[in-house]
Amino acid sequence: MKCIILLTEFLLFCVNFILGEYFYDVNYVDVPVDHFSFTNNATFKLRYLWNDSFWNNDGPIFFYTGNEGDINTFAQNSGFIWEIAPSFKALIVFAEHRYYGKSLPFGKKSFSDPKYVGYLHSSQALADFVYVIDHIQSLNQHFSGDSKNPVIAFGGSYGGMLSSWLRMKYPASVLGAVASSAPILQFQTPCDVFNRIVTSVFQISSENSDCADIIKKSWRALREVTGNAEGREWLTKTWKLCDSLKNENVAVLFDWLQEIYGNLAMVNYPYPTSFLSKLPANPVKTFCSKLSITSFKPKPLLEGLGKALNVYTNYTKDAKCTNTSETSSTSIGGLAWDFQACTEMIMPMCSTKRDMFEEQAWNYTKFSHDCYTRWNVQITQPNLAIIEYGGKNLGAESNIIFTNGLMDPWSGGGVLHNVSDSVHAILMPDTAHHLDLRAYNRNDPTSVLHARYYIQVIIRKWLQSYYREFLNTYYE
Amino acid sequence: MKCIILLTEFLLFCVNFILGEYFYDVNYVDVPVDHFSFTNNATFKLRYLWNDSFWNNDGPIFFYTGNEGDINTFAQNSGFIWEIAPSFKALIVFAEHRYYGKSLPFGKKSFSDPKYVGYLHSSQALADFVYVIDHIQSLNQHFSGDSKNPVIAFGGSYGGMLSSWLRMKYPASVLGAVASSAPILQFQTPCDVFNRIVTSVFQISSENSDCADIIKKSWRALREVTGNAEGREWLTKTWKLCDSLKNENVAVLFDWLQEIYGNLAMVNYPYPTSFLSKLPANPVKTFCSKLSITSFKPKPLLEGLGKALNVYTNYTKDAKCTNTSETSSTSIGGLAWDFQACTEMIMPMCSTKRDMFEEQAWNYTKFSHDCYTRWNVQITQPNLAIIEYGGKNLGAESNIIFTNGLMDPWSGGGVLHNVSDSVHAILMPDTAHHLDLRAYNRNDPTSVLHARYYIQVIIRKWLQSYYREFLNTYYE
Repeated sequence: MKCIILLTEFLLFCVNFILGEYFYDVNYVDVPVDHFSFTNNATFKLRYLWNDSFWNNDGPIFFYTGNEGDINTFAQNSGFIWEIAPSFKALIVFAEHRYYGKSLPFGKKSFSDPKYVGYLHSSQALADFVYVIDHIQSLNQHFSGDSKNPVIAFGGSYGGMLSSWLRMKYPASVLGAVASSAPILQFQTPCDVFNRIVTSVFQISSENSDCADIIKKSWRALREVTGNAEGREWLTKTWKLCDSLKNENVAVLFDWLQEIYGNLAMVNYPYPTSFLSKLPANPVKTFCSKLSITSFKPKPLLEGLGKALNVYTNYTKDAKCTNTSETSSTSIGGLAWDFQACTEMIMPMCSTKRDMFEEQAWNYTKFSHDCYTRWNVQITQPNLAIIEYGGKNLGAESNIIFTNGLMDPWSGGGVLHNVSDSVHAILMPDTAHHLDLRAYNRNDPTSVLHARYYIQVIIRKWLQSYYREFLNTYYE
Repeated sequence: MKCIILLTEFLLFCVNFILGEYFYDVNYVDVPVDHFSFTNNATFKLRYLWNDSFWNNDGPIFFYTGNEGDINTFAQNSGFIWEIAPSFKALIVFAEHRYYGKSLPFGKKSFSDPKYVGYLHSSQALADFVYVIDHIQSLNQHFSGDSKNPVIAFGGSYGGMLSSWLRMKYPASVLGAVASSAPILQFQTPCDVFNRIVTSVFQISSENSDCADIIKKSWRALREVTGNAEGREWLTKTWKLCDSLKNENVAVLFDWLQEIYGNLAMVNYPYPTSFLSKLPANPVKTFCSKLSITSFKPKPLLEGLGKALNVYTNYTKDAKCTNTSETSSTSIGGLAWDFQACTEMIMPMCSTKRDMFEEQAWNYTKFSHDCYTRWNVQITQPNLAIIEYGGKNLGAESNIIFTNGLMDPWSGGGVLHNVSDSVHAILMPDTAHHLDLRAYNRNDPTSVLHARYYIQVIIRKWLQSYYREFLNTYYE
């Protein structure tokens, strides 16, 4: 039996290695648009991916709580789940988050008005997941009475926040959660932490450590150059911007740059990936190695920076120009995430003298005003998520594994200490954003291999105790 | 100090003894109509009662999670909280449940249309309570940083369900919960359990044990007499019904009778009360002692029954006629509860040969159809509350005390076993519905005195651990 499982795992690994992707059925289930009122009884089709190749009907359900993007992206970038499913005889389900991918409650008009987009709320998304779990459990009549297949929730980043919250709010539906790089404390973390960690990553990735210095100096150069029409035209040409840079778009350019540095640090993986953009191995190191300047004067500095930026924007060399209206070539984020960041997921961000970014205080008034302009939704409580999910007070929770790479800018908002004997923190000192959730790679640092091992040991312990207690059977 | 507290307790007891009521400030706070979407940002005024006579700013908050009625009723009928607050130096807060009392989100039109009444949802009510708690904690700037006054939630009946759910869903906001006679498992309990317990109460309250027998026989007699116009006229006169009984109202009469028997068992307290209706001590015993019949023929039987019913409907002898459109002279239940019972709080009820009621199967189709007729809301999931609150699976919960009187018909849906070392079940074998939450009375059975003692011991343990861990202080 063990032999068959190992053989299946090996074949799966080979198929994935050759084809570079995982396979699954695509299903839809009708879920209520509003789980928490009876003002309307509209439903919509929520998408979920399903692979039962390794499942024997009484095994657990490995349930990925989809986050801000097309669910296929997360399925293809969470190889760890696929790799361990055979030995757990687990059903694999990836459920899409409402308002992303194909799970749009009101089709094309989903974002057109608060009366449509207003149901984009993490509580509703969690209730969707519980609904899908109940639906799947009721499809499987393997157990009698109240006995059900146990569910282990997985998620990375915002998906990890959701997996941990799902266990917190619905412990009867979800036996345990693996929350990888889940910044559930980011709402209360000092606003400069994210940018300080990004800076550290750039500092240690540069052989002569001047990478972060050059970036820090680049902001003044950019202000100077973009301050006049000639300079903007020069930059458009030098950086091959798709749209001619206008004065009113300078702010967008600054935001875009900041986000790219953050993204580079987040996906600073030890092998080539295409999660946010097609990138080489160790992209920050590559970026820094390309960042050579002939002088600290504005134009030479920006010329050098422009070349280095190509590592992120045009690593494959097939882009004809640089599009500053997007920072990711995949479906992550976008319009729906902007709404969430404006309403519930308000994570204060700022930069100071101590980091490589242009100094910028956190300005809630401006933030909230800009959000109102874009979405016509007025938030009266900036601490909604803290109240709803309890903030730092995790003493009553159980069966959650928080993993964090300390080279991940989001780790500043992560749970970095064991909370109890069943709420674990696993730290990976030399690792970026949720690397542990990705498929095995020979270049993975040892810390990630250890993390993956401990995650499996802990999940198995949860399952063994569940099968003994609730199903009166033995789980290997 | 101890002396002053005891003196205060004594004075409070005297004031209450003389005036028969508790005193408090009445406050309102604006809470969102919808906590779980951004489709509208309307707010409404939620009422809460406040007494800080015993509070010294760093003491705990005793927070009653209001249930289906005017919050004043619960404040006046939960003397236990008032009696123990001084020794805990606790702030007393009674928060009203939305759609009851003065807390109507849309004023008079609150029940007129699903678009208004639809926000009557237990999840929204819990979120209201968390909102009020946050509001109160932020008013008190006694502690620095994240430190806050710990909250102990209390509730009886549906209020007890809410207090336990509040701890389950918001453990960071609520340190622990006392859930008295909270039938959180009633959704999954065999449908005849409630009526079987009612029957037992009537059986053991009758000296010659024929009380339940007579009631069991009365249904056929009632069917016979109400089957024709002459009989209905006779019954109208004999039972002094306010409205002449018409054929189409016979079903209402049957429901009314069933509910009265249930109510009598629920509030079968060992001293006179006026919680649901003005009643003597041990009302079931009184009812049964008055139930004497001269013959088992329909009319003599119903004549005897009519006299016994006066114990419930006209104990004070000031009612001119019997109103079959209400079963409670206080504000409990009513329109809003009917909506809740139709949507989320669907508790299957039936009666069989084994109880004193007319046989009646649980008919979900009819139930759901009747509800749709009344409320224009279609429920597609009858197990909403089980999914939302986890049903019987309480293994992950902590810091909850479930108390149940085994003479309470609702105890069949209660948590009757300890779940863990912090989820306690306290049983009171000889006690009716949430008697432990009421003020001390010399006629209280010993089981209630013990229950009240253990509740205090457990709360104190929770608080001592909280003050040590979070506030670095010592709680006596």
